Amino acid sequence: MNKPKVVILGGGFGGLTAARALTKTADVTVVDRHNFQTFLPLLYQVSTAGLAADHVAYPIRGALRKTGAKFRMASPISIDHKNKQVKLDSSELLDFDHLIIALGSTTADFGIPGVTEYALGMKSVHEALTIRAEVMRRFEDLCRFEDNTRLTISVVGGGPTGVEMAGALAELVRGPLKSDQANAAAHIDVQLLEAGDRLLPPFSPSLSARTKKDLEKIGVKVMLNSAVKAIEHRKIILRDGTVLDSEITVWAAGVQGSPAMQQLNLPVVGNRLSVAPTLQIKNYPNIWALGDIAGALGKDGRPLPMVAPVAIQQGKFIAKQIDRISNSKPLKSFSYLDKGSMATIGRNKAVVEVKGLKLTGTIAWLTWLWLHLFYLLGGRNKIGTMADWTWNYLTFDRGNRHIMDGQ
Amino acid sequence: MNKPKVVILGGGFGGLTAARALTKTADVTVVDRHNFQTFLPLLYQVSTAGLAADHVAYPIRGALRKTGAKFRMASPISIDHKNKQVKLDSSELLDFDHLIIALGSTTADFGIPGVTEYALGMKSVHEALTIRAEVMRRFEDLCRFEDNTRLTISVVGGGPTGVEMAGALAELVRGPLKSDQANAAAHIDVQLLEAGDRLLPPFSPSLSARTKKDLEKIGVKVMLNSAVKAIEHRKIILRDGTVLDSEITVWAAGVQGSPAMQQLNLPVVGNRLSVAPTLQIKNYPNIWALGDIAGALGKDGRPLPMVAPVAIQQGKFIAKQIDRISNSKPLKSFSYLDKGSMATIGRNKAVVEVKGLKLTGTIAWLTWLWLHLFYLLGGRNKIGTMADWTWNYLTFDRGNRHIMDGQ
Repeated sequence: MNKPKVVILGGGFGGLTAARALTKTADVTVVDRHNFQTFLPLLYQVSTAGLAADHVAYPIRGALRKTGAKFRMASPISIDHKNKQVKLDSSELLDFDHLIIALGSTTADFGIPGVTEYALGMKSVHEALTIRAEVMRRFEDLCRFEDNTRLTISVVGGGPTGVEMAGALAELVRGPLKSDQANAAAHIDVQLLEAGDRLLPPFSPSLSARTKKDLEKIGVKVMLNSAVKAIEHRKIILRDGTVLDSEITVWAAGVQGSPAMQQLNLPVVGNRLSVAPTLQIKNYPNIWALGDIAGALGKDGRPLPMVAPVAIQQGKFIAKQIDRISNSKPLKSFSYLDKGSMATIGRNKAVVEVKGLKLTGTIAWLTWLWLHLFYLLGGRNKIGTMADWTWNYLTFDRGNRHIMDGQ
Repeated sequence: MNKPKVVILGGGFGGLTAARALTKTADVTVVDRHNFQTFLPLLYQVSTAGLAADHVAYPIRGALRKTGAKFRMASPISIDHKNKQVKLDSSELLDFDHLIIALGSTTADFGIPGVTEYALGMKSVHEALTIRAEVMRRFEDLCRFEDNTRLTISVVGGGPTGVEMAGALAELVRGPLKSDQANAAAHIDVQLLEAGDRLLPPFSPSLSARTKKDLEKIGVKVMLNSAVKAIEHRKIILRDGTVLDSEITVWAAGVQGSPAMQQLNLPVVGNRLSVAPTLQIKNYPNIWALGDIAGALGKDGRPLPMVAPVAIQQGKFIAKQIDRISNSKPLKSFSYLDKGSMATIGRNKAVVEVKGLKLTGTIAWLTWLWLHLFYLLGGRNKIGTMADWTWNYLTFDRGNRHIMDGQ
């Protein structure tokens, strides 16, 4: 029997997991617009000068070595269902027996005006370096002004991403920037805006309260019940009419399925692809979706969270489903094994919640560090990240404060 | 007595050395258009995916901590000699008693048409990342074509920079790219063009010959007596009329004083500032110049080489000269202590020449490695670079193959 041809659109956590799992039983081609995978969970540390940009990236060809899978650096343009081909913007047509859509997500603005124009997203290395450059450039302005000008950096969204970003920004300001130029650093405020009445909604309320307290301890102004109505140039307008100064606004309020899904003309539910419990796209039995772009439902009937563990489990699952089809076995339904949630707040401060077990403080922080190192791709990245972290921890410094977004 | 106000334009090797040496005896302000120093000697390793971009950069404010020196991120626009002020593009006017010009150099095209348009320079992190992205993007093209299309990468200039670049490119192609996709890597040629009749003109002829042999061993096509007449789109035209295919042309043929010197309207000799043996600019006793931008002459009456040791020695020297003026002592004349030259060719291959002592092979390579680590600023950079190097050496891989020049 011939091996089925499997094309995987997207080389993130889910796409690469599926590719590796299919390596013996299928002819796999991975397509991604970048030649590297971005380790999104650590991107906020690139934004805040803690990690070198190259440490959160890993060459996809490196990840696929020894698997026999092919790679194409390109974006998909359209699917020819009749001939079972996907067309790429490199003008290639790839034949497939199975197509796995693993294109991930993009920043969601929820229709709030000004987000695209005036807020900074944090979904790519490029965006992370833009945030880093903006913060450092405004800091250089303050150093030059030598007056009482204040600078407010806002993070919108009190989920794990927003919490981690706000905590890391506060530590950057109160640590390295204070050492660089104390009077300028003293004029920088960091605030975190959350629409709901507590931070980290997926966690228990006690951990939400602890997180708020920990953030405030390191200097973050936490504003709950602060839904954003609009972002303007250097301003945030809240739904209650309050106008907040905000020279830099980082948008961490949410993500939605990659816009490529509209282009591919497949059925959509909400802002994700409509998938059956088998993870096949409804009405397209040879097309599968996983991760952030797939609107799979959990046991509670609600959409699964847009996090790496879902994509990884679904990648393995779809690989098995395709093997089942190859072996004429019946398909199964996907069910997500929730291994818990975690968020880091700062030095020795994190929250971890696993099936009722709650950890905080140093032990939660160490758990967070080791799990992230474990999932980070590549020995060189692990070593480099460990070196950067050790250095930052021991010296209270962050060495990557370079403005590298231009010439 | 009041401390003299010293403004230093440029935060490279020379500028930072002068700033640190003046810290107790002067009020120092360093001005640079970047907020970081770039370690130029290792930039070619960023271009060839061996080192993370952030490892060759070091925040200037970090380098100046504890010195009390100020920093301004800006470029100089003009000097007001009457009021002893320098105007910055940030609209600031800085008062000075002494001005040190340490703005370094830029790529020299020697009037050869097409260099600016079609060749890639290697004088900044941005340019290094552009070379890396170009090489990796063309490699992705070859992987997609799956035919006999060939790709030629040319390095123009057989000095240390060109030799190091060509060697590192050849090792990238024959190592990591071959592991990524062997048939595509086999279609990439690397050639090194030198106008003269031997590589590394500052070295002894025997080391030049050894370098050529070593480069050829790792797959570089070395073309001597090949002066370039013009660069065109994907082509190099030699002075003898030969037309060479070259999809990527890296320009390492030489540098000239930063163009900022024209703007500052100071006396120029050749393409560098005209300085007296005291390193004062001719006719401007309170303005000093050092390093690549300063046309200081050696004992042999020829201009000093544009390398870091000259800038570092001159930085220390000018600091002492300014102290001499403060203490009403007579000025001295600068003389350069040549500590020798070195260039790395590849894995276990380098050439070192120190006062007649010639080293080649592994021992030269280790000498090169340790000296570069020693001069690289910052503990984090040293550790990160050592980690990258160790990893590359043990795995024969280069992990930083990311295309990160855009979105």
